[in-house]
Amino acid sequence: MERVFDFSAGPAVLPVSVLKKAQESLVCYPDAGISVLEMSHRSKPFEAIIESAEANIRKLYNIPDSYRVLFLQGGAIMQFAMIPMNILKGSGKAADYIVTGTWSKKALSEAKTQGTCNTAWNGSETSFKRKPANFELKLDKSAAYCYICSNETIEGVQWQVLPEVGNVPLVCDSSSDIFSKPIDITKYGVLFACAQKNAGPAGVTIVIMRDDLVAKSDDNIPSLLNYKKMSEAKSLLNTPPTFPIYMVKLVTDWLLDDVGGLDKMYVTNKEKAAMLYDIIDNSDGFYTGHANKEFRSTMNVPFRLPSEELDKKFQQEAKEIGLTTLGGHRSVGGLRASIYNAMPKEGVEKLAEFMKAFMKKEK
Amino acid sequence: MERVFDFSAGPAVLPVSVLKKAQESLVCYPDAGISVLEMSHRSKPFEAIIESAEANIRKLYNIPDSYRVLFLQGGAIMQFAMIPMNILKGSGKAADYIVTGTWSKKALSEAKTQGTCNTAWNGSETSFKRKPANFELKLDKSAAYCYICSNETIEGVQWQVLPEVGNVPLVCDSSSDIFSKPIDITKYGVLFACAQKNAGPAGVTIVIMRDDLVAKSDDNIPSLLNYKKMSEAKSLLNTPPTFPIYMVKLVTDWLLDDVGGLDKMYVTNKEKAAMLYDIIDNSDGFYTGHANKEFRSTMNVPFRLPSEELDKKFQQEAKEIGLTTLGGHRSVGGLRASIYNAMPKEGVEKLAEFMKAFMKKEK
Repeated sequence: MERVFDFSAGPAVLPVSVLKKAQESLVCYPDAGISVLEMSHRSKPFEAIIESAEANIRKLYNIPDSYRVLFLQGGAIMQFAMIPMNILKGSGKAADYIVTGTWSKKALSEAKTQGTCNTAWNGSETSFKRKPANFELKLDKSAAYCYICSNETIEGVQWQVLPEVGNVPLVCDSSSDIFSKPIDITKYGVLFACAQKNAGPAGVTIVIMRDDLVAKSDDNIPSLLNYKKMSEAKSLLNTPPTFPIYMVKLVTDWLLDDVGGLDKMYVTNKEKAAMLYDIIDNSDGFYTGHANKEFRSTMNVPFRLPSEELDKKFQQEAKEIGLTTLGGHRSVGGLRASIYNAMPKEGVEKLAEFMKAFMKKEK
Repeated sequence: MERVFDFSAGPAVLPVSVLKKAQESLVCYPDAGISVLEMSHRSKPFEAIIESAEANIRKLYNIPDSYRVLFLQGGAIMQFAMIPMNILKGSGKAADYIVTGTWSKKALSEAKTQGTCNTAWNGSETSFKRKPANFELKLDKSAAYCYICSNETIEGVQWQVLPEVGNVPLVCDSSSDIFSKPIDITKYGVLFACAQKNAGPAGVTIVIMRDDLVAKSDDNIPSLLNYKKMSEAKSLLNTPPTFPIYMVKLVTDWLLDDVGGLDKMYVTNKEKAAMLYDIIDNSDGFYTGHANKEFRSTMNVPFRLPSEELDKKFQQEAKEIGLTTLGGHRSVGGLRASIYNAMPKEGVEKLAEFMKAFMKKEK
């Protein structure tokens, strides 16, 4: 069977060259005589894999020595709880949450199980179509941290310029835009991302955290939820998700060696997104986007047609020509094209052509 | 390169037929047009995978409807904390721990972060060589649960007959002997296992839990750590580790269809273990086992030679003929052959022959 172009929001498309390399090592890893799936996490080949994955991440984001890079489990929702469990609880402080969509809202709700959290801005009042301006934020200067979600996967709303939070550590859920563009990591106290959108398959969470924040974990926090203990053990306190980590190594190899780094990735990502947004903007309202123009995501493009019936017809006909998983999140409906790093330009071009043809036919 | 026989304690050997099947679906899953790694966890093909994995587990252990089967993350160490967090904390009760080796000891230490735990028996006083008799146990009749580790991976000590705990729920870490033999699941309140020894690759944890225990989770426990919430969401509260779950489906398919069920698996496992223990017993002390005979594990066979130098020589020469990862756990040294379900009989036969030849040469 031929491969299709799949626009799933996650688990999502991976580079074909990466999939082929993983496929080769699935029965017999080079020079190991066993599958990468069977490899002890204390073995030399696996040590080389996890060290290489970390080195790649450090290179991509130019991460200084004062930050740890951890490979954890449980996805973003586990981080929603671990962040306040380790950094907020017992600090005598409160945390600020800037709520810009479904995922930051969910993060706030999980965090409230661990400590006092304030809503520094609530985007639901403006239907999660934009990020706030700095003057709109009700920030607490002594907050334990200020929390943001850099790209809201469901609403397709992305921070273009970070909020000004002064000396308060900025904690960022970058699950759906990690490695999509160059960033200045020193602006963040913590940046985390589940892998299954831009960094690998489901099953591993990348956490980049400044040393002074890692040091805050109380000894009574269970080991697997304890940043300090996980950091001391270099993410190998127990068996880590070895295969997902191997895939992160391959994806970051691809970003560095095949793509040529994040500057180049960002150029391509902007080009891909512009192809779809241009059609939406020039459709005379046949296609409606969600986010305000200046906050549009380069990764997730949610849009709608004039009726639910047309939304369905669009998906059905797209599927017939190999453009799949274009439905919006089950909580909001409509359509959504997730066009992560690994979505080839050809895939977006094919979708753009289909959008034009569908409009011509149905408008 | 040819495959070797690898005796790692975990991540461990997988059936070659399973690896080959996974390999085939790694670029293009049948009828999906995408890799199994790229598949949305809400897609029809993945729903079929997770449902099939659960159905297989239910069939293998004949699990009644009054038990949930969950696919979680974080391995056994996460369960060490989740069990008391959900079932002990706030119950006004204490929990009993029967400490028979490194892993149950570690479980007790993690559990103490969550509530009052008593040591019902401490095997360290007899060097973790055996399980206790019922009369030796100091059990609390009103305990929230009684905790055991069915097979101590490091010491190679396995429960043959379960302890008598009356109406107290029995909680069992079966990480290194799940699916190795038929069991009566109704004797357990909870049975859990990380996958990477007998059930799949690293990255997923199987939890089989009686409904009344699932119901105990407090709403304030973070979602990913909350059995009730994870159960209500059928393990799909967020993106689960999709590929490890797919591998569990393939491994349990193999157990049911190729092996022919757990009765047959158990016969083979006993035969494999007997091959190694016979050599140890007939070596006039050249090879020394660890556990007392009646508590020996069918899964992990730790042993020693008369000197550390010989231990090293043994490993080196074994490696040269394709018998790898025979070192003991880094905490205890010596040697260990892990001979899980997927270790072919030929692998154990080859190791047995090597052990005989090495003894003849070095004794």
